[in-house]
Amino acid sequence: MIRVFLDALGGDNAPEATCRGAIEAIGNDPELHITLAGPVDVIAPYLDEAGDLRDRLSIVDAPEVIDNSESPALAIRQKKKSAVVMGMLALRAKETDAFVSAGATGAVLVGGMLRLGRIPGIERPALAPLIPSSKGQFLLIDCGANVDSRPEWLAQFGIMGDAYMKRVMGIEKPRIGLVNNGAEEEKGNQLYSQAHQLLKKAPVHFVGNIEGRYIPADHADVIVCDGFDGNLILKYTEGIAMTLMGMIKRELMGDTRSKLGALLSKNAFQRVKKRMDYTEVGGAPLLGVQGAVVKAHGSSNARAISSAIRQAASMVRGGVAQAIEEAITVQTNTDNIQ
Amino acid sequence: MIRVFLDALGGDNAPEATCRGAIEAIGNDPELHITLAGPVDVIAPYLDEAGDLRDRLSIVDAPEVIDNSESPALAIRQKKKSAVVMGMLALRAKETDAFVSAGATGAVLVGGMLRLGRIPGIERPALAPLIPSSKGQFLLIDCGANVDSRPEWLAQFGIMGDAYMKRVMGIEKPRIGLVNNGAEEEKGNQLYSQAHQLLKKAPVHFVGNIEGRYIPADHADVIVCDGFDGNLILKYTEGIAMTLMGMIKRELMGDTRSKLGALLSKNAFQRVKKRMDYTEVGGAPLLGVQGAVVKAHGSSNARAISSAIRQAASMVRGGVAQAIEEAITVQTNTDNIQ
Repeated sequence: MIRVFLDALGGDNAPEATCRGAIEAIGNDPELHITLAGPVDVIAPYLDEAGDLRDRLSIVDAPEVIDNSESPALAIRQKKKSAVVMGMLALRAKETDAFVSAGATGAVLVGGMLRLGRIPGIERPALAPLIPSSKGQFLLIDCGANVDSRPEWLAQFGIMGDAYMKRVMGIEKPRIGLVNNGAEEEKGNQLYSQAHQLLKKAPVHFVGNIEGRYIPADHADVIVCDGFDGNLILKYTEGIAMTLMGMIKRELMGDTRSKLGALLSKNAFQRVKKRMDYTEVGGAPLLGVQGAVVKAHGSSNARAISSAIRQAASMVRGGVAQAIEEAITVQTNTDNIQ
Repeated sequence: MIRVFLDALGGDNAPEATCRGAIEAIGNDPELHITLAGPVDVIAPYLDEAGDLRDRLSIVDAPEVIDNSESPALAIRQKKKSAVVMGMLALRAKETDAFVSAGATGAVLVGGMLRLGRIPGIERPALAPLIPSSKGQFLLIDCGANVDSRPEWLAQFGIMGDAYMKRVMGIEKPRIGLVNNGAEEEKGNQLYSQAHQLLKKAPVHFVGNIEGRYIPADHADVIVCDGFDGNLILKYTEGIAMTLMGMIKRELMGDTRSKLGALLSKNAFQRVKKRMDYTEVGGAPLLGVQGAVVKAHGSSNARAISSAIRQAASMVRGGVAQAIEEAITVQTNTDNIQ
């Protein structure tokens, strides 16, 4: 049995998307048991749809909700009856195996740090979404949990990303790359040129610097960067894809021949859209905390919630947190010997 | 008369692209006179094509060439007979009005700093290409001249971008935005949250933070950032556009209907390509030095060189360097009064 704790009121489309997503997830995975946390009276009606599967769904009353406008640090301290605080404490007490939320990112980060806790040796947990690339996808780490990073953190992000890609994505020897403004190892600002040296010595398959134009070109399975830059890359990807698709759409409607062409190519464009679709990929794992935590996109629909739950279960099955702990111990010991 | 000094051997397609570009430029602008600097025997044959226009083209012998693999600082010191060194010195001595090169970026930056010199009050010159956006284009400043920037530099980038957009692009009140990971003014890392405060006080129309997803969404005419991030944005734009177009192409070839559709929509796709095409836009002005300097793309063809020359002429006509000098004086005086 794998027990997942779900923030039932997290995200723009909750509780409908979260409840339906939970039902879809247990339908796909007979080992799953999901606890939905939120105001009982709000959630309960949605679970009637579960039918035979209802016995693998529980509700725990979490009347307090944390929204995006609140100070995460304050909210985590004060709202003890929120799904985030209750879920992180349950994970720490081993009363659940994984935590999933499409709610406020800041609350998940702070809750993970303060109520669940870091893996011993890890300096900063990091948020690591999978981003579509030319051939498949890559893990971008960190994506906003930390700004003003130190080089040592970036080296640890590489180690955490390595563990995730091995244990969840089944890649035997993930290629770890570092965002940079040039291919040569001395390139970059202070942070990145120092991080390069640390990653060279880290127990991962480091493939060197990845310039902006090669980020989506399948040169690495894990791309390491500071959270400010990761946030920029993640959101800019969305922005530029929207702009480019908008431009194409406008131009296709610009003349009659193209209009007809667009009609005929509809299936192809739908396939592109599906490839770019975050709902298929799941959410962003929060790596470096003592348990499996997945932050789903705020605008998640039921399919996206179900994917995030499947992803959290894969993290439990793959023992990602344990793998990170082992790798960090190896690194720390190696550092001490040198 | 506007005199432009052109690095005739700069860029992947030189000297053919540079010479043809020069001829195209003087054909379009009767006021232009262009001096091509490079090995005379290499350049001279290409200028025969100029015909009647030949009297507005001169050659100056610059036998030394700086390539991308050299240390820019060393090359600028040692290669006194290179087009970059000769051009920057000519600009400083007012023997020419503008300098254009598609050669090594590092050499143009260092040459601009050491042989031409900064505008009094400017701490760091910045490279500022125009990037296509949903509605037109925006100026991205800095794009790689400076990494590890200080907040004061970013504020000056805003002032320089403002002058360029007013004087060259004819925008009366350019909207100046700051790259950031959130809309709220306290957002960002140390560099960006401090730069935000300085831009608020700067003599420009500051519209606040621009998140990644809104960078291409026409929220600002000038987008300010550190050179490391600007380089990332510039190159990633190229990378993601290539990846997305590649994905669309593959999917269009995936079934017969779509293939036919693609054939019919060919014109629309060509219009999109043209909108994304750097050769139409020109090059990246180097702002903050004492003269009009344009760095054209390394893979410039004749059309791109001609656009970069036209752009350099517009900078001279608009008095961009003078406008920056005046704005910086105003800012410095205001700072002293406060």
